[in-house]
Amino acid sequence: MRIAQVAPLAEAVPPKLYGGTERIVSYLTEELTALGHEVTLFASGDSVTSARLEPMLPQAIRLDPSIRDAVAPHMLMVQRVLDMAAGFDIVHFHIDHLQLPALRGRGVPYVSTFHGRLDLPEIQPLIAAFPEAPFVSISDSQRRPLGHIDVNWAGTILHGLPENLLPFSPREGGYIAFLGRMSPEKGPDAAIRIARTAGIPIRLAAKVDRADQAYFDEVVAPLLDQDGVEFIGEINEAEKAEFLGGAMCLLTPIAWPEPFGLVMIEAMACGTPVIAFNRGSVPEVVEDGVSGFIVEDELGALAALKGAAGLDRARVRAAFEARFTARRMAEDHLALYRRLLGQDRASVLRAV
Amino acid sequence: MRIAQVAPLAEAVPPKLYGGTERIVSYLTEELTALGHEVTLFASGDSVTSARLEPMLPQAIRLDPSIRDAVAPHMLMVQRVLDMAAGFDIVHFHIDHLQLPALRGRGVPYVSTFHGRLDLPEIQPLIAAFPEAPFVSISDSQRRPLGHIDVNWAGTILHGLPENLLPFSPREGGYIAFLGRMSPEKGPDAAIRIARTAGIPIRLAAKVDRADQAYFDEVVAPLLDQDGVEFIGEINEAEKAEFLGGAMCLLTPIAWPEPFGLVMIEAMACGTPVIAFNRGSVPEVVEDGVSGFIVEDELGALAALKGAAGLDRARVRAAFEARFTARRMAEDHLALYRRLLGQDRASVLRAV
Repeated sequence: MRIAQVAPLAEAVPPKLYGGTERIVSYLTEELTALGHEVTLFASGDSVTSARLEPMLPQAIRLDPSIRDAVAPHMLMVQRVLDMAAGFDIVHFHIDHLQLPALRGRGVPYVSTFHGRLDLPEIQPLIAAFPEAPFVSISDSQRRPLGHIDVNWAGTILHGLPENLLPFSPREGGYIAFLGRMSPEKGPDAAIRIARTAGIPIRLAAKVDRADQAYFDEVVAPLLDQDGVEFIGEINEAEKAEFLGGAMCLLTPIAWPEPFGLVMIEAMACGTPVIAFNRGSVPEVVEDGVSGFIVEDELGALAALKGAAGLDRARVRAAFEARFTARRMAEDHLALYRRLLGQDRASVLRAV
Repeated sequence: MRIAQVAPLAEAVPPKLYGGTERIVSYLTEELTALGHEVTLFASGDSVTSARLEPMLPQAIRLDPSIRDAVAPHMLMVQRVLDMAAGFDIVHFHIDHLQLPALRGRGVPYVSTFHGRLDLPEIQPLIAAFPEAPFVSISDSQRRPLGHIDVNWAGTILHGLPENLLPFSPREGGYIAFLGRMSPEKGPDAAIRIARTAGIPIRLAAKVDRADQAYFDEVVAPLLDQDGVEFIGEINEAEKAEFLGGAMCLLTPIAWPEPFGLVMIEAMACGTPVIAFNRGSVPEVVEDGVSGFIVEDELGALAALKGAAGLDRARVRAAFEARFTARRMAEDHLALYRRLLGQDRASVLRAV
């Protein structure tokens, strides 16, 4: 199939820094290429891919201080995609909504994945204005805020990671891991309280965004100065394997409906169980009692910590391999593309 | 003529706070309506107009803290305009570039005014990708950075103000006025130095944006603590008449190629001469020796201060009335719309 993947330009694909969407676009693009498809990646010029790269600007926007208008390069990209659309069987957009008015009625087969939260009041009327546009959700829970709107959902496809990105780690090092941003939504303060009450050491790997500096200074920093609490700052992709693989469990006491928490499947890839608050996509990702525990609050997490030590790390890894590889993610997308194009078996039967 | 004006949604039309583009869209919309045209204004719902308002969201984005994605309402607006396009003879966009890919090839007669600077590196390839799209520049100097690009310039139309917005003030109060943002580009530090060297009192009316706080604290604030220097903070539209009308001159020692400095024609409306640095649109706005003086630097401004006192304030006002009323601005736009639609005399002759 001739497939175009259209990435955000904020970060390179894969990202040099933080950038969940760009990572997923990279994994998807590489797997589709590995499966023999002719993939074109619209992305910043510092992207690295085995697909054909259509570079939209020399450097990703976040790394280029000369760029003030981050939308302009995206509008140019939308036009470039339209200009080249005849060369693709399907175009897959990952840039929120910027393509919608330009694509309407053009006869270009396309689909869009929304990677962010859909409960923003300004997003809903926009999606409602495009009832014909097919969307992919990254979890069923992501759709909830749009329950009252007529959306052409093409499917839910959970994220996946390259199978060998993070190796299985059969033994753990007796600490709880927290990995994410130091933001109220991610709940690092709850994580520390839970670990301290349980008397288990906790290590936190996290970046502090400028927007979260006050929260970090006022709420988190005072908690860091305790025995058994270690803040190791931001870690890169290469350091994740050791950090997550060495943990007895990952703790994600999130306080928002996260549409998909990549860190959960990263831990599972290492064989590390996940204790997660029951918000957003968590029940779609964690298999309660197998790959971790789904809890309601800090008290529930305390109880789950006892159980987590008893989970079989090999079964956690197996849960990852069964449901969260990039290969599975790519195959789900291929099936979805074929469905949209009417090339799947059911469509063919309907057409008869 | 059935005309659609498409305003930015950051501020209401007219703006409740700072918002040069929204003010111009308001003046243009009201004058076109007064001239008997059927005008539809796409804008935030808290806009006030005698045209037909198509409210795109209840409140302007800058006043609505619940909005995180400022682009989403604009994309919805572009689609709404497309949906209603058959009802307009011409659509006039004031939202930079967000309409370009969506409008291409739709058969909708439209024109776009760029209100900002065009020397940003990310803007130029975007405009170059739309050689068929007609643009209005707000000064000839605004076009300069695009000299090497094939742009379909439909015309330059300088801004204008409602004729009676700011009354003529025949007498002045012996001070220099500075009005604008406290930013390096606007040169408040240069204005203070010039006034102090000349020994003439200066009054500064300005807002301090968060982005400019460091500049203000480090560069401007130390200069404010001198005799003859008075900082009166931000003033509203109603206070402008007294502030500008009472000044012996307006001093705009700008350090950037400002595409159009509204404050210059505001001063002229009051009969107050303008001493402006020779950057951007200044030579297109100030008539040297009539409505003020165009100078190259601080030394030049010092010399001009002597001359400014000798200018006839009634002639300054006359220069405003001749070239910078909203009526003239609206008539220029009508002529431009007709030219684009092939309804002007020359087009008719060409068609024969």
